[in-house]
Amino acid sequence: MLGVCYYPEHWPESWWAEDARRMRALGLTYVRIAEFAWSRIEPEAGVFDWDWLDRAVATLGAAGLKIVMCTPTATPPKWLVDAHPEILPVDPETGRVRGFGSRRHTDFSSSLWFDAAMRISEAVAARYGDNPHVIGWQTDNELCCHDTALSASPAARDGFRAWLRTQYADIAALNTAWGNVFWSMEYRDFDRIELPVGAVTETSPAHRMAWRRYASDAVVRFHTEMVAIIRAHSPGRWVTHNFIPMPETGVDNHALAAPLDFASYDNYPLGRADLALAKAPAADLRPWMRTGHPDMQGILFDQTRGLTGRPFWVMEQQPGPVNWARHNPRPAPGMVRLWSWEAFAHGAAVVSYFRWRQVPFAQEQMHAGLLRPDSSEAEAWPEIAQLAGELAGLELPEPGRAPVAMIVDIEAQWLSDIERQGAGYDYNAIVAQWYGAVRGLGLDVDFVAPGADLSDYALVLAPALAMPGSDVVARLRDTPALVVIGPRSGAKTRDVTIPDGLAPGPLRALLPLRVLAVETLRGDCAGEIRRDCDAYGSLGWRESIEAGDCTVLATYEDGTPALLRNGRVHYLATLTDDAFLAAMLTDLCGEAGIAVTPVTDGLRLRRRGDLTFAINYGDEPVLAPAPDGAVFVIGGRTVGARDLAVWR
Amino acid sequence: MLGVCYYPEHWPESWWAEDARRMRALGLTYVRIAEFAWSRIEPEAGVFDWDWLDRAVATLGAAGLKIVMCTPTATPPKWLVDAHPEILPVDPETGRVRGFGSRRHTDFSSSLWFDAAMRISEAVAARYGDNPHVIGWQTDNELCCHDTALSASPAARDGFRAWLRTQYADIAALNTAWGNVFWSMEYRDFDRIELPVGAVTETSPAHRMAWRRYASDAVVRFHTEMVAIIRAHSPGRWVTHNFIPMPETGVDNHALAAPLDFASYDNYPLGRADLALAKAPAADLRPWMRTGHPDMQGILFDQTRGLTGRPFWVMEQQPGPVNWARHNPRPAPGMVRLWSWEAFAHGAAVVSYFRWRQVPFAQEQMHAGLLRPDSSEAEAWPEIAQLAGELAGLELPEPGRAPVAMIVDIEAQWLSDIERQGAGYDYNAIVAQWYGAVRGLGLDVDFVAPGADLSDYALVLAPALAMPGSDVVARLRDTPALVVIGPRSGAKTRDVTIPDGLAPGPLRALLPLRVLAVETLRGDCAGEIRRDCDAYGSLGWRESIEAGDCTVLATYEDGTPALLRNGRVHYLATLTDDAFLAAMLTDLCGEAGIAVTPVTDGLRLRRRGDLTFAINYGDEPVLAPAPDGAVFVIGGRTVGARDLAVWR
Amino acid sequence: MLGVCYYPEHWPESWWAEDARRMRALGLTYVRIAEFAWSRIEPEAGVFDWDWLDRAVATLGAAGLKIVMCTPTATPPKWLVDAHPEILPVDPETGRVRGFGSRRHTDFSSSLWFDAAMRISEAVAARYGDNPHVIGWQTDNELCCHDTALSASPAARDGFRAWLRTQYADIAALNTAWGNVFWSMEYRDFDRIELPVGAVTETSPAHRMAWRRYASDAVVRFHTEMVAIIRAHSPGRWVTHNFIPMPETGVDNHALAAPLDFASYDNYPLGRADLALAKAPAADLRPWMRTGHPDMQGILFDQTRGLTGRPFWVMEQQPGPVNWARHNPRPAPGMVRLWSWEAFAHGAAVVSYFRWRQVPFAQEQMHAGLLRPDSSEAEAWPEIAQLAGELAGLELPEPGRAPVAMIVDIEAQWLSDIERQGAGYDYNAIVAQWYGAVRGLGLDVDFVAPGADLSDYALVLAPALAMPGSDVVARLRDTPALVVIGPRSGAKTRDVTIPDGLAPGPLRALLPLRVLAVETLRGDCAGEIRRDCDAYGSLGWRESIEAGDCTVLATYEDGTPALLRNGRVHYLATLTDDAFLAAMLTDLCGEAGIAVTPVTDGLRLRRRGDLTFAINYGDEPVLAPAPDGAVFVIGGRTVGARDLAVWR
Repeated sequence: MLGVCYYPEHWPESWWAEDARRMRALGLTYVRIAEFAWSRIEPEAGVFDWDWLDRAVATLGAAGLKIVMCTPTATPPKWLVDAHPEILPVDPETGRVRGFGSRRHTDFSSSLWFDAAMRISEAVAARYGDNPHVIGWQTDNELCCHDTALSASPAARDGFRAWLRTQYADIAALNTAWGNVFWSMEYRDFDRIELPVGAVTETSPAHRMAWRRYASDAVVRFHTEMVAIIRAHSPGRWVTHNFIPMPETGVDNHALAAPLDFASYDNYPLGRADLALAKAPAADLRPWMRTGHPDMQGILFDQTRGLTGRPFWVMEQQPGPVNWARHNPRPAPGMVRLWSWEAFAHGAAVVSYFRWRQVPFAQEQMHAGLLRPDSSEAEAWPEIAQLAGELAGLELPEPGRAPVAMIVDIEAQWLSDIERQGAGYDYNAIVAQWYGAVRGLGLDVDFVAPGADLSDYALVLAPALAMPGSDVVARLRDTPALVVIGPRSGAKTRDVTIPDGLAPGPLRALLPLRVLAVETLRGDCAGEIRRDCDAYGSLGWRESIEAGDCTVLATYEDGTPALLRNGRVHYLATLTDDAFLAAMLTDLCGEAGIAVTPVTDGLRLRRRGDLTFAINYGDEPVLAPAPDGAVFVIGGRTVGARDLAVWR
Repeated sequence: MLGVCYYPEHWPESWWAEDARRMRALGLTYVRIAEFAWSRIEPEAGVFDWDWLDRAVATLGAAGLKIVMCTPTATPPKWLVDAHPEILPVDPETGRVRGFGSRRHTDFSSSLWFDAAMRISEAVAARYGDNPHVIGWQTDNELCCHDTALSASPAARDGFRAWLRTQYADIAALNTAWGNVFWSMEYRDFDRIELPVGAVTETSPAHRMAWRRYASDAVVRFHTEMVAIIRAHSPGRWVTHNFIPMPETGVDNHALAAPLDFASYDNYPLGRADLALAKAPAADLRPWMRTGHPDMQGILFDQTRGLTGRPFWVMEQQPGPVNWARHNPRPAPGMVRLWSWEAFAHGAAVVSYFRWRQVPFAQEQMHAGLLRPDSSEAEAWPEIAQLAGELAGLELPEPGRAPVAMIVDIEAQWLSDIERQGAGYDYNAIVAQWYGAVRGLGLDVDFVAPGADLSDYALVLAPALAMPGSDVVARLRDTPALVVIGPRSGAKTRDVTIPDGLAPGPLRALLPLRVLAVETLRGDCAGEIRRDCDAYGSLGWRESIEAGDCTVLATYEDGTPALLRNGRVHYLATLTDDAFLAAMLTDLCGEAGIAVTPVTDGLRLRRRGDLTFAINYGDEPVLAPAPDGAVFVIGGRTVGARDLAVWR
Repeated sequence: MLGVCYYPEHWPESWWAEDARRMRALGLTYVRIAEFAWSRIEPEAGVFDWDWLDRAVATLGAAGLKIVMCTPTATPPKWLVDAHPEILPVDPETGRVRGFGSRRHTDFSSSLWFDAAMRISEAVAARYGDNPHVIGWQTDNELCCHDTALSASPAARDGFRAWLRTQYADIAALNTAWGNVFWSMEYRDFDRIELPVGAVTETSPAHRMAWRRYASDAVVRFHTEMVAIIRAHSPGRWVTHNFIPMPETGVDNHALAAPLDFASYDNYPLGRADLALAKAPAADLRPWMRTGHPDMQGILFDQTRGLTGRPFWVMEQQPGPVNWARHNPRPAPGMVRLWSWEAFAHGAAVVSYFRWRQVPFAQEQMHAGLLRPDSSEAEAWPEIAQLAGELAGLELPEPGRAPVAMIVDIEAQWLSDIERQGAGYDYNAIVAQWYGAVRGLGLDVDFVAPGADLSDYALVLAPALAMPGSDVVARLRDTPALVVIGPRSGAKTRDVTIPDGLAPGPLRALLPLRVLAVETLRGDCAGEIRRDCDAYGSLGWRESIEAGDCTVLATYEDGTPALLRNGRVHYLATLTDDAFLAAMLTDLCGEAGIAVTPVTDGLRLRRRGDLTFAINYGDEPVLAPAPDGAVFVIGGRTVGARDLAVWR
């Protein structure tokens, strides 16, 4: 099913009905509205103007569209800021207030802001909660976008102090847990603790980790309360949130998604490729500058699906050039349809485009829509028309479980920021590299949280489990799958200290080895990892291992252990090049009974129920790796450039 | 005629007479004084000490020098800052006050500062307005140098609010014009509007454009009032201002120059080359590191002349190494004379050197003068002596009109800063590229403001007319010239919105085409533009065009239009490489009846009246492209390295 | 002799005795304690808890260890900051307070801080001054680490004003000395002078130089008072300080060391190599990433020894990977022993390791110790055991005088920061280059302060004597040595002005030449320096010289003088490439009767008394350049990779 994002307040009311008619004619089912409309809903404190929105809902609904209603809390109006400047956040890097003039100018720690946000949410929910055209809700918009999870405001400092009191109860316990004796950093009282910002040199990693947890909890608390308010007023409707890329929220995304019916994602392949490959040579960017990188959408579709385990929405899909990357190319012909199909292949229930009509004013006036500002059809229009037709002719089965699970661990990501140790160590890059290696074998991946049930997988990968709890250790012990655990796992206790008995700490129950030392190297000064007769690159992060009872499967250039195994569980003690990962995973899939289909260049495979999708990001046709006798429901055995084939 | 900048307050009074005598002996006519002397003129608030300056004026005048007197407002003394710290500006990037200790520590929005500046200006003007030795005036010094046009002070905020009230009258009009509904950015009152700084993410382009206009207006108001004060007290004297490079003022330079008799420019070729080529490979910098780049002086001579259309002054000419670039080479032998001649070729009335004697103290002690600190003659001395002799033997005719006009548009420059869209898009770089292409054909160029009369040109180039008003459209319609308008023209309305009916907005009267989409690409990921059988680079900014009734003269690699023509007017829809510009312009000159003389490497041509100048920046002799029978008045047919020839 | 840094407060008291026993068993003699223990010594203002430290001292002493006691002033506790937030420093770049949460959060200008620091120092000195186990004292820890010499606090501003009054007595003298007339920067009163920070553009170099001197004086005053307090309470004990690399203190290191018995240095070869070579290609870093660069330890050993002229300590020696560089490799096998031996070769009395046991918590948990957190022996352990045995078998003679003296000049370093002129000019890099050139000839070097006696040297090198006083001129006149003075010498008076009669100012008594002009070039746009028939690179900084009565020994590409000589004194007017330095120095050594032994790659030589050390940083064995008949006391004629040989 398809949808679109619409802002009736941006257009003359006389246009609404015709817009709605054209939406339906194009084959769209859903329309999302009102996410930034606070200043029109409540132009002055306590003075509400519902009339225009009532009429917009009625007009869209009358046309047969199902409405996704939003809480408008991403853009509080100026009168609120003027009345309560304390709601503004403070930049932790500079100490400067982040002011009005764009969006997200609010501090999750501010109780004034919390109350104001819940009040407007309740007003909207009460007004439209049982409106028959309203099918579901989106909370806020892209929570934590623009690095807004962390603030260094007085409210944040006070909130952090209160939160620490709940976590540690007495100050001596905190001092001990954090090791504050180290540099005479001991506190006498929770009310004397500062935020870990603006110090002369680096602050304690325990201090910074606690701050991250506090900030994440504040966002989750804010969001959970908002969901509860919506549910109280809108029985029978679902609630979702449109996530930015999960690694960028700065928040425990699983906790954020917990109260939702399903998660949504805002998919902007070209902006992401431009930024992710900003320092890559032209030869690496050019093939993907108008398509996006073949793995960068799938990984986020899979992560979004993994947040709830249920089919997700793409709430915003780029339909043309955007305005916010350093360079903003046009999508290659066919890509808007192809990205949409790729989302469905990865388990999307709905793909919704951002936005209906390019708006000729303000910050995003160079962001394409389905229509140009003059209401003419923009480039993506025929692709969506084609897609709508294709979807009408094909019932999509429920997405199933993948053979491979990857455990993503927000605290490993935070540790990667907090304790750099090696400048090239980047948790998210490691997850992306491992994901790419699995996808290169033609396999589907499920992303799961650290405590998730692993009993139905054949292969479980944990690129880094920095501070494993007893739950994940138990899950890894109990799964019948082969398991690969990456370096820096079990490296820390919950309070960011080295575990008793050294790393991998509680994982020693599975892997009776010890990490004796860690070295980090510059990216261009790699060492080797040797496996059978082959040598590969050992990169960046290298641990010296005492093997204990483990079997050594690969070694460093000096013969010491680099990959070890105990039972079904492997420990990879170093970051490696792609070739090593591919070789290791190919063997493990063989042992686990997972059939691999290596793919190259722009081709990616993905199954949904009994359907197999072959997505070709490349600019040359490729042969679909379909079995003899495959029944093609879309396309055929030769998959065109920027096209797809689907078979049973 | 030649001049020099002199600071009598830096030297013992006993030296003044001998200095003046040597100036005259060298052949200098003008001496500029007093621009930084406020603390000596008014050592305490209201306590003036004119005696020393009276004596300096008398001594210099008695030697036969003509004095250019200055208002000393670039360096207000500490007592003023102590009494009124509110005059200090605030850095928009950091929010930090920009304090005392160097120069330009003032805020154009501060009424305290405005009053103080006009008071000292009036005092100086009253004292010397009718002094017979004072021939003219320089206002202030290098207005807006060090990025001082913009300030984020409370005074700037208040001034901006008041200015907006004058522009929009009622707040609803402003909200509509700016599209503030977009992110609930609507204001209820002018007094609630913030400066567009310090927001969470980007602010509205309309908001930022308004701020630029306000800041420009504030500088213009300051300057215009100062000129009026001088004129009131100094009948019969001219008034000028020494501009920094116009693209760096942040101000509408035509408006700034409007009250002046003529404009002046401070010419520092080596510092500019070092900074402009800072990231260029050594092979690109090395040939010009001791000469400056052959096009970088001419473009600013031409822009300076274009501000008033009258002969300009070089008020400060580098005579040796300077102190402020990252690297500060010595000029190659001959260059000080050659830069001076080049200025005269481009229409200079006077070239004045900065400075008489290298000062052994303070910030610029490593900046060369005509004399060393010990009063010995520095390297440039004999070159200037030679030049003075040559000038004495040659009457320079009035500069005439060039065959080619280039329209420069400050608002296009601001748009380039405000709405990046493509990181490689740089208005000033585009103007420089187009200028270089024309100069490479051996042609002279006039720079004109958007509303200027174009009736006497054969070729008119508008690299970008971002927000064309009806005046420029009429001028382009009425000119008999061939016209080339570059991409991003007509892209916006005055309030930085996309025009009704799409770009190029009002230019559609001349070019009945529509810009359907814009894409921006990384510099190393270019596309193609094809013309006849040749392919060239299409770079950075690429517009998709609906051709309407226009003729397509060149296409992109996919065959869609990239260069179009309607009548005499062309629209180039993309940035291109140099080769495309050269080919296109060569053809247009042929059609327009302009004879071209392609030049290479370091040779540049320029006409002044009936004289043709060949300026050789290169380190090898070249043959002057003089016609048979040319009469050489300086040099001959072979132009030496770093030398020139002039013929009739 | 060997030692170790120990933090009893980090470990259970029950471990102390066993730790002490193992220290002794390993062959360690000294243990340094208490440097960061303030919050345990004085948990609340005025409430002291000495018991635990008394017991720690007794336990360590009872095991036979000699204790180095510290003043804990690098880490003031939170209660002090809470009571007196005025002690926090302010970042000069940002204006932001540098807060609590790490270390060194104090302002040397704060009298509150000064008093608090002296009070705790006196308390510790009084408690342990005559303790029989305490053999000596370390003041504070790594003074000025983390760029803490400069602060822009109100206290610093007030202190600077008071200091200026003592320097200049009346404000007119200051205005004249600094040349404040230049931009109307004249002050009417010392109490109106600002810190030279946050101005619109660069402030006066005299202003900045004065600020550096003030800040240095403040640190020296703080340290000198602390040493006096210790001496008053601890008769018969020595006092030292553990310096960071001298070029990074921002302080006159000779003045800082003046009250000490000897200086100490904290030696971290791998972190230094990673940072120093951060922008170098992999081929330059890789050979040294696990050894450190062969010259980067020796130069600091020699500089440390030069601070007092007496044998120094390495107070902290890296024993494994550290945590604070961008990349933190493991030392190559053998390097911990080799670095230690190298220190002894350069005149160390003691090498002490940082730290006994890797601490599992807080900022440095990834910093290796001699033990791992689980008390197992870490990698360096056997190397230290071997070293202890070797030391026991060899009596080290007193270090003698080197044949070559290099004059290091903190004010030349400050000038290099304050007046950039050429972006590639870096005083410390020049000193390192000249040092490397001498060391490459197999020679020992003594670093001396500008006023030091030079009568016993054969060759004296002064890479830059920016503002030479009469003392150094007299020393250079009186020495029988050959002398080479580098460019930018005599460039300035004490108040950072160009000397009367031009540079080299007072050095003209030795070198009757004049510096007519200076040019600076980009590093990749070098010129030439020609000597005999050979051409070398003339880099970055190039002075035009009037030779006067000097003999010209080398010229630029245009034939003008680049190296000149008068009597025994040479003036090198340009920075050069390494090859030129090697050729020039080889000739000079020949003339001076100094035998050279050119070494390549990783081999370095160093004499101590009658012993010669050959230190091999390389990964291949090399032949020791020992004379026939040499008696090897360690190793033999073939020096293994990362090994050494010592002979008589």
